[in-house]
Amino acid sequence: MERFYNAPDQVVDAVLAATAATSDLRIAAPESGLRILIREDWDRTDQGRQQVAILSGGGAGHEPAHAGYIGDGMLTGAISGSLFASPSVEAVLAAIRDVCGEAGCLLVVKNYTGDRLNFGLAAERARREGLAVEMVIVADDVSIQDAPQPRGIAGTVLVHKLAGYLASQKTPLTEIKAATESLCRSLASLGMALSPAAQPGQRPAARAPELGLGIHNESGTREVDPQSADEAMALVLAPLRDALTNRHLSGPWIAVINDLGGCSTQELGVLADVLLRQLGPSQVSHLLGPAPLMTSLDMHGFSVTLLPAAAEFVDALSAPTSAPAWPGLRPCRAPTTFAPDTHQAHDALSEDAPQDTRITNQLKRIVATLRDARQDLDALDAKSGDGDAGASLQSGADAIAAALEAGRLNTQAMAPLFAGIGQLLSRDMGGSSGVLLSILFTAAGASLDQRGDLVESLADGIEKMQTYGGAKPGDRTMLDALVPAIESLQRGESLSQAAQAARDGAQATATLTRANAGRSAYVPESALQGVVDPGAEAVARVFETLASTT
Amino acid sequence: MERFYNAPDQVVDAVLAATAATSDLRIAAPESGLRILIREDWDRTDQGRQQVAILSGGGAGHEPAHAGYIGDGMLTGAISGSLFASPSVEAVLAAIRDVCGEAGCLLVVKNYTGDRLNFGLAAERARREGLAVEMVIVADDVSIQDAPQPRGIAGTVLVHKLAGYLASQKTPLTEIKAATESLCRSLASLGMALSPAAQPGQRPAARAPELGLGIHNESGTREVDPQSADEAMALVLAPLRDALTNRHLSGPWIAVINDLGGCSTQELGVLADVLLRQLGPSQVSHLLGPAPLMTSLDMHGFSVTLLPAAAEFVDALSAPTSAPAWPGLRPCRAPTTFAPDTHQAHDALSEDAPQDTRITNQLKRIVATLRDARQDLDALDAKSGDGDAGASLQSGADAIAAALEAGRLNTQAMAPLFAGIGQLLSRDMGGSSGVLLSILFTAAGASLDQRGDLVESLADGIEKMQTYGGAKPGDRTMLDALVPAIESLQRGESLSQAAQAARDGAQATATLTRANAGRSAYVPESALQGVVDPGAEAVARVFETLASTT
Repeated sequence: MERFYNAPDQVVDAVLAATAATSDLRIAAPESGLRILIREDWDRTDQGRQQVAILSGGGAGHEPAHAGYIGDGMLTGAISGSLFASPSVEAVLAAIRDVCGEAGCLLVVKNYTGDRLNFGLAAERARREGLAVEMVIVADDVSIQDAPQPRGIAGTVLVHKLAGYLASQKTPLTEIKAATESLCRSLASLGMALSPAAQPGQRPAARAPELGLGIHNESGTREVDPQSADEAMALVLAPLRDALTNRHLSGPWIAVINDLGGCSTQELGVLADVLLRQLGPSQVSHLLGPAPLMTSLDMHGFSVTLLPAAAEFVDALSAPTSAPAWPGLRPCRAPTTFAPDTHQAHDALSEDAPQDTRITNQLKRIVATLRDARQDLDALDAKSGDGDAGASLQSGADAIAAALEAGRLNTQAMAPLFAGIGQLLSRDMGGSSGVLLSILFTAAGASLDQRGDLVESLADGIEKMQTYGGAKPGDRTMLDALVPAIESLQRGESLSQAAQAARDGAQATATLTRANAGRSAYVPESALQGVVDPGAEAVARVFETLASTT
Repeated sequence: MERFYNAPDQVVDAVLAATAATSDLRIAAPESGLRILIREDWDRTDQGRQQVAILSGGGAGHEPAHAGYIGDGMLTGAISGSLFASPSVEAVLAAIRDVCGEAGCLLVVKNYTGDRLNFGLAAERARREGLAVEMVIVADDVSIQDAPQPRGIAGTVLVHKLAGYLASQKTPLTEIKAATESLCRSLASLGMALSPAAQPGQRPAARAPELGLGIHNESGTREVDPQSADEAMALVLAPLRDALTNRHLSGPWIAVINDLGGCSTQELGVLADVLLRQLGPSQVSHLLGPAPLMTSLDMHGFSVTLLPAAAEFVDALSAPTSAPAWPGLRPCRAPTTFAPDTHQAHDALSEDAPQDTRITNQLKRIVATLRDARQDLDALDAKSGDGDAGASLQSGADAIAAALEAGRLNTQAMAPLFAGIGQLLSRDMGGSSGVLLSILFTAAGASLDQRGDLVESLADGIEKMQTYGGAKPGDRTMLDALVPAIESLQRGESLSQAAQAARDGAQATATLTRANAGRSAYVPESALQGVVDPGAEAVARVFETLASTT
């Protein structure tokens, strides 16, 4: 399966059904064979409303156009054809009849022959029935120079919004028609695609990237070969600006970035950044999107629409609407930056830090123990992980040794000592275990400050290590030695007893074949049998060192 | 070029810069090397606000997460790492310092080791600085049964929203933490992808479709081979419902459909329809999306998140927010349908229609003329179009002949006659020219009703034909004969003179090598040289028939 579709001929109705199930609208009963969606709260006989109805529509495959733009302040209803094919005269007429009251109805039609004719004949029939119907034809595509009939593409969505806004302000039909025609004259759009749209059930045609590719895969201006988002955007903006200059229109602009269907969020973000840079931040007053506004199925491309940021357009496009697919017009500006506060708030390291020789020496012995253990630990880790446990712990030990050497660790008071070790390990040890041990000592330091109990503060640190690391005893980690040792101390036992508990815990890891955390989690169970966890082994050796010298 | 990117290592900063340029937030200065974005209106020293700050973040590549969720009622700020890599402790700590006031700060963290550790250590450091910081870890992925550390995926966005809503209500930190943890326990998500994410600058790995593929391309539960959107959704929903049942959770649900990055709008619409059908409309209380909420670059896949629709969740998730990427929670219901009004309002055809023998006979002669002309017209069209002009006009003539035969066309009054011809041609002639001629006669009939002038009413019809059809004289269409003929009549000339004008106009089309409308627009200019437009030829013959018999 290439795409998340069921039968190709069910795509349009499925999409509309989902829209109808999640929006405040009513949909023509399926047995009618017509695809009409209308605001649920719309009653054409409501004289008090005095609002012009705004209808749009056309072939399907351009979703969220057009049903996604139905809502207060935008479309009253939409008529959908099948994929890339205009709806019937009958469907358009039925929609007009449903929505058109005293105030009349405006049809917003993209400039394609089928749409013009079918909406046009429906309008003429509706007029014969005494309904006040007008039509505005959107022809914003500038891909083909001096085209007698430029196509209507993503700029159409702006026409929906302006018309809907004016209608919500009870503007008369003739004025809405004039205003939208004025908007159409100020509007230019151009698209580019790396690959064309694929109809459901079909593979996309192999086709070079094209500038000006239409939303039904119609030929573009020419084949192009952009090598970057910058080049792609420049190819689009140059003819767009030429077309606007020819019409004596100038910025600052309201810009629209439309996903033609296949762009990722990240590509659209890059394109928005490029657009702002290439036009210049001061020349983009507002941005609509980037978003899928007028798509062409899964076409991997985008279009840009530019419109001078006149106050009447900005006001209308900024007004709120309940239409679910309108992404909201966003003002643009040069980003506000700030300097993040990265100062070392509590530098636990200092010049000439107070020393307690006994503690200093004990630390040096632990450093030596860890350095000596490197090969053994790496060997254990080679069987259960990625073989760098010893090296990683040695980095930490080296950092502590260097700080002791420089007299920068306060060994007279345990709280700042723990904080200092925490600071060193996160900076110099690296890897998950560096951060984990840093958490242990940082939290223990903070706890000691508050509770004043050495053992309990270490227990608190170990608790935090479990919270953030996600491991618990039995998971083949250093906790399997740490937790029994600290529990022994909490029971008031001696350091020797605690060291024995750590050793027993470390040995027990050799029988644990299920690793739930850390790197061993990715190793087959059989490979773990009989192998002591290197982290637990290191902890046992540290406690043994402490016990032997206390 | 495969994707709209510039240099691969510029993607993240470009996307964030675009967000910063179009949102009410400030961004850490680029020279800081940290990627922090914070609500512009947030001032942690504002005692009056008394709001808990909500921070989230993680690796990039999941946009719009997390910066898109910054706004009133959602996140206070976001910290981004590089692609698929956790931000540094330093970045998280700087963000906490920036936002955390008296009310404290909640970190919303997806359950990945790197994020847990870096956010965790930052939290511990911040606590040492006296800041009230708590963390909630989201682990909503149910892809791996009994996983000790389930991943955090799209459900995280709901946690952002709940936390932000509660913070906006001045809920204390401990209560927000408890409420979000309760939400996390009720939340289950599962994804599936047809193809994995491709890192910028790299081609995607060839990989079979997978159920439960992680948002960093981590392995899923298993390879799958769905043949339809229905099958794909069923594969996702079954384990999701099992997981929820195991936790004694039941519907109706708040459902989330998340685009993992590469789905078209149409695919997402189909998936939404399928979800509603498979869960049953009554079991889906609300839907979030379908939308890209927590993407994995361009991964072609989707995830579904389910959460019981408890009132406290619905209220929080329905509350407004200014966060640009929040698509809004939408209530679901069975669609409201209506029967479109397709009645024939003014049936211009009737049984025993009044007959004027002279007009009836004239019409019959025109029918004969068009039938006789078929081969000539098809031959002309073969050179300039698709060769069916004669056949198409004959269909129209046949329809008129049949209606005359059945006595259903009123030939005593021209207004209903025009209306009747308009009705017949749109239904039975087909193609653009059928609709165009229908517009001509429908509009002429309406005009005749109003203005009472036969020639002017036809001129009005021709005017409408130009408006909707988009062609004008000189475009190699039937207008090149129609317009001169009607202008002749408007000048008060005879039918013979009008016929001559039509003939001259038709002949002149042989010298027009530029076709701006109709099918000839797609034919090379050289092929048109010397070829009379078949539509104009038909019009000339009709006027000649009229002139010869009047």
